[in-house]
Amino acid sequence: MADSFHDLSVLRHSAAHLLAHAVLEVFPDTQLTIGPATDEGFFYDCLPANNFKEEDLPILEAKMHEIAKRDLPLTHTQISKDEARKLFAKNRFKLQLIDEIPGETVGLSKQGDFYDLCRGGHVGRTSDIKFFKLFTISGSYWKADKKNQALQRIAGTAFYSQADLDAFLKQKEDAALYDHRRLGKQLDLFSFHEEGTGFPFFHPKGKLIVNLLVDYMRTLQTKLGYQEISTPLILSDELWKMSGHYAHYKDNMYFVKIDEKGYALKPMNCPGAYLLYQERPHSYRELPLKLAEFGLVHRHELSGVLHGLFRVRAFTQDDAHIFATIEQLEKQIIEIIELTRTVFNRFGFNDIKVALSTKPNNAMGSEIVWNQATEALKTALDKARMNYVIQEGEGAFYGPKIEFKINDSMGREWQCGTIQVDFFAPENFDLSYVNSLGTKSRPVVIHRAIYGSLERFFGILLEHFKGHLPFFICPTQVKVLTITDEQQPYAQEIMAKLLENGIRTEIDSSSDPISGKIKTAQIEKIPWMIVVGKKEMAHRTITLRYADGKQEQNIVIDDLAAKAKQACSR
Amino acid sequence: MADSFHDLSVLRHSAAHLLAHAVLEVFPDTQLTIGPATDEGFFYDCLPANNFKEEDLPILEAKMHEIAKRDLPLTHTQISKDEARKLFAKNRFKLQLIDEIPGETVGLSKQGDFYDLCRGGHVGRTSDIKFFKLFTISGSYWKADKKNQALQRIAGTAFYSQADLDAFLKQKEDAALYDHRRLGKQLDLFSFHEEGTGFPFFHPKGKLIVNLLVDYMRTLQTKLGYQEISTPLILSDELWKMSGHYAHYKDNMYFVKIDEKGYALKPMNCPGAYLLYQERPHSYRELPLKLAEFGLVHRHELSGVLHGLFRVRAFTQDDAHIFATIEQLEKQIIEIIELTRTVFNRFGFNDIKVALSTKPNNAMGSEIVWNQATEALKTALDKARMNYVIQEGEGAFYGPKIEFKINDSMGREWQCGTIQVDFFAPENFDLSYVNSLGTKSRPVVIHRAIYGSLERFFGILLEHFKGHLPFFICPTQVKVLTITDEQQPYAQEIMAKLLENGIRTEIDSSSDPISGKIKTAQIEKIPWMIVVGKKEMAHRTITLRYADGKQEQNIVIDDLAAKAKQACSR
Repeated sequence: MADSFHDLSVLRHSAAHLLAHAVLEVFPDTQLTIGPATDEGFFYDCLPANNFKEEDLPILEAKMHEIAKRDLPLTHTQISKDEARKLFAKNRFKLQLIDEIPGETVGLSKQGDFYDLCRGGHVGRTSDIKFFKLFTISGSYWKADKKNQALQRIAGTAFYSQADLDAFLKQKEDAALYDHRRLGKQLDLFSFHEEGTGFPFFHPKGKLIVNLLVDYMRTLQTKLGYQEISTPLILSDELWKMSGHYAHYKDNMYFVKIDEKGYALKPMNCPGAYLLYQERPHSYRELPLKLAEFGLVHRHELSGVLHGLFRVRAFTQDDAHIFATIEQLEKQIIEIIELTRTVFNRFGFNDIKVALSTKPNNAMGSEIVWNQATEALKTALDKARMNYVIQEGEGAFYGPKIEFKINDSMGREWQCGTIQVDFFAPENFDLSYVNSLGTKSRPVVIHRAIYGSLERFFGILLEHFKGHLPFFICPTQVKVLTITDEQQPYAQEIMAKLLENGIRTEIDSSSDPISGKIKTAQIEKIPWMIVVGKKEMAHRTITLRYADGKQEQNIVIDDLAAKAKQACSR
Repeated sequence: MADSFHDLSVLRHSAAHLLAHAVLEVFPDTQLTIGPATDEGFFYDCLPANNFKEEDLPILEAKMHEIAKRDLPLTHTQISKDEARKLFAKNRFKLQLIDEIPGETVGLSKQGDFYDLCRGGHVGRTSDIKFFKLFTISGSYWKADKKNQALQRIAGTAFYSQADLDAFLKQKEDAALYDHRRLGKQLDLFSFHEEGTGFPFFHPKGKLIVNLLVDYMRTLQTKLGYQEISTPLILSDELWKMSGHYAHYKDNMYFVKIDEKGYALKPMNCPGAYLLYQERPHSYRELPLKLAEFGLVHRHELSGVLHGLFRVRAFTQDDAHIFATIEQLEKQIIEIIELTRTVFNRFGFNDIKVALSTKPNNAMGSEIVWNQATEALKTALDKARMNYVIQEGEGAFYGPKIEFKINDSMGREWQCGTIQVDFFAPENFDLSYVNSLGTKSRPVVIHRAIYGSLERFFGILLEHFKGHLPFFICPTQVKVLTITDEQQPYAQEIMAKLLENGIRTEIDSSSDPISGKIKTAQIEKIPWMIVVGKKEMAHRTITLRYADGKQEQNIVIDDLAAKAKQACSR
């Protein structure tokens, strides 16, 4: 077996050819364009004579299996462009591709009487493609440009085993089932409205979760000596010109006219923080000065890419700017890495991937400073016992960077935290402090965010936990369910006790039978249901039922609050 | 003595004549325009041959005293407009006024050889004007219109006694000394920058105060069953057209284009709350539904009227919308009144004035509903034992209103809280709930804010307390001052203990002598200074020094945290 056997992209690329082959056998008047392998599978963009319909997918899939079973060998050869132009004379897309490919020859792959332009890299025979599935037909454009010919995309995936394919399909199904947009609606957490496309509305329980995320970060930050600030949402074009945002980020910004002058909604919090820093002189004794801001930023996104809380047009960053000397860098970075780890672990993300991006070609600042900073980051990562990969030359022009990625329960990777060292902003905004000799020095600025976007992190949490958020961040932590109305006073007493201890508690005072109350609480994904009937009331105990159906009986009511508080700190 | 003796406006109007008389004697080429009495005193707008200078004020004041001593009688007669035009032939401003006054005659007041156009209402003789003071020379425009002739305004005040004048001048001096803009800079709380005219930047200690104001309100609200939401800052023009803001409030709004569509920054939170309410059906069991939002609103103000935190272009409302049945109105209003009283009292505002505004001529909604609502408000005010005045016909067209005013330590009145009943929004936004019969009903909406604007309330607090904020809301509550460095470990121990108990504590670790440390803490307006020297450390006690200089000695360190926590709840 060749090495390529385990290379999914080879298999999927071959599957795209198989799909194209099937398309031409079933719909011979179709024009093929391109069909690459992707991270999730493969697709082929086509221009059919008549639009494909959802019902065509099983037909095409069946035809693919049939061709696979023909056990045709796949071959790949280089042919002259002239020869290629004759073969694809009727397909203007392929003709354009032939023109665009550099050199005098192009690759051609063949299986039976099917042939396609191709760079190569295939399985040996069509029968090697056994485990595949077509998903969707959707709209696309030639060269992904709306101004070009509209096409239809058939997408699917392929694996080397039925087990892998099944696992993937299950994960895809789960992802749809636990899509945070769906959970957000089901749990009444947030909504989107056409009156503000891309701007989330947080409902009471959703806003509570956002507030809890803020509180948690605020508590950790305060202990580390961060100081919170807030800067305006609207600042002048001049400022954005000075910061470079106007030149490089204009298309993602929203603009406002005030008194005939140009202003913009902030897409980042940094310039506001610099203005505030500049407001008075600073002494070296104040450094490191850690200014944190839960800053609401507005960034334009095309309406087509908006996606629930994952991709919005306004979001809150847990931003901070640390003004420090270069000597303080290492210690500060260690502190941020440890804070990041604390936060991610708190939410059950224990598999954290770290990348360090180093000096790019277009870097500003001296070699010495870059080396010193990059070494500080490396040492910090080592001292914090963090494994990391180095992305050579991928830092920003203004400084090296550390990025944190977490893996969720569905195996997906999310980039959340970043630490960015910045030599440029202090120069550009003429930021200074008075050093111990009484003269002016430049601080280094460290930008850092841990959640990144609160909204996006909220969405990740929802999907990762499939709606069953950790106890400490649940909007309703406990729901008291009475078997009959007789236990209402007892339920009230339990609730009062829990509320007093800061446990978010509700009573189901509906007239539903206990089975109905349990079902409602399950739908609401309440972690703790407290069931109280005649017996419990008589003995002043409760039955604790967890979301997964497990129960603990005979818990003495006096122990309940302590038990709940303990659950909060887990 | 005539009744008018105690009418300050009569005295001040006469003082304005006295000023004008003095101006003409000292600077005979000056053209007089108008000179009314104001709430604070009087002014006269003049067009001098050469600009007045600050140094002219004492000269004019001396001349006023001299004329006053001449004991000239003041007379007032009606003369024909023709006669008046002859008298003021050389003064185009007075000629214009003569044209504008309706009727065939105008009033003329005289004292000695000075005469002026005048509606009347004077003291008897110039010697009745004894206690006065000129303040400022400033720029103004004829008819207050920038396009007209620029003038100079001389402003002053007059009282019937030296004591009243002194008290007023002291208050004015205090107001300048304790101007919140000055305190904000001195205590490093907030700043304004030309990059965002009218948009406050909150520095760490200022942001902490804002957060404490939010936390305090959030805690009270949560206990009352309010649920917090958040809605976007940017919403579509269509929505603002529907809500009526576009038609009536457009000039105060900021607009943004997104994808070629018109949007605006929200000037009010209501429409967003309605969209959220509409997101799902509501049952009568959910009512009253209390949705609170700490909503950042943007409202345009002319740059000339911007004034620190009192008048800004962006501020945070402690807003809430209560969706209720008309039967629930009374109870809800009582609850809000009591909440308002609790909050104002907490900050030492015990003198609360209340006004109830009733049905105006252009009201919408039936007489029955208005009567029911207005009666509910009255009963609520009575039951909450609130004195109030009725402002007949001054309610909004969409419902009756209650306004709360507080008096600050300098005798100024501030309108803060409002309760507004709204019959119109539920109709306009088609808001409904399912009643107990299973059919749709309209709720009533109650808009309410207590602080009003958090930023403005912050400014009021600063001025009211002259920078000495109440203990529970001080950014730094306690500062530990060591007499020598030997006590540093003891100081650290004290700070750790206080921090553990949630008391915001700092240590002055400078090398200043104790007198210097005390002075610094006084400038920072720290309420509690904890002084520890050799003796205190040996006995494990502390000396507590309050901002006013009073001291308590021999406080056992174990009692300190409890004492501080007690101070927080006062």
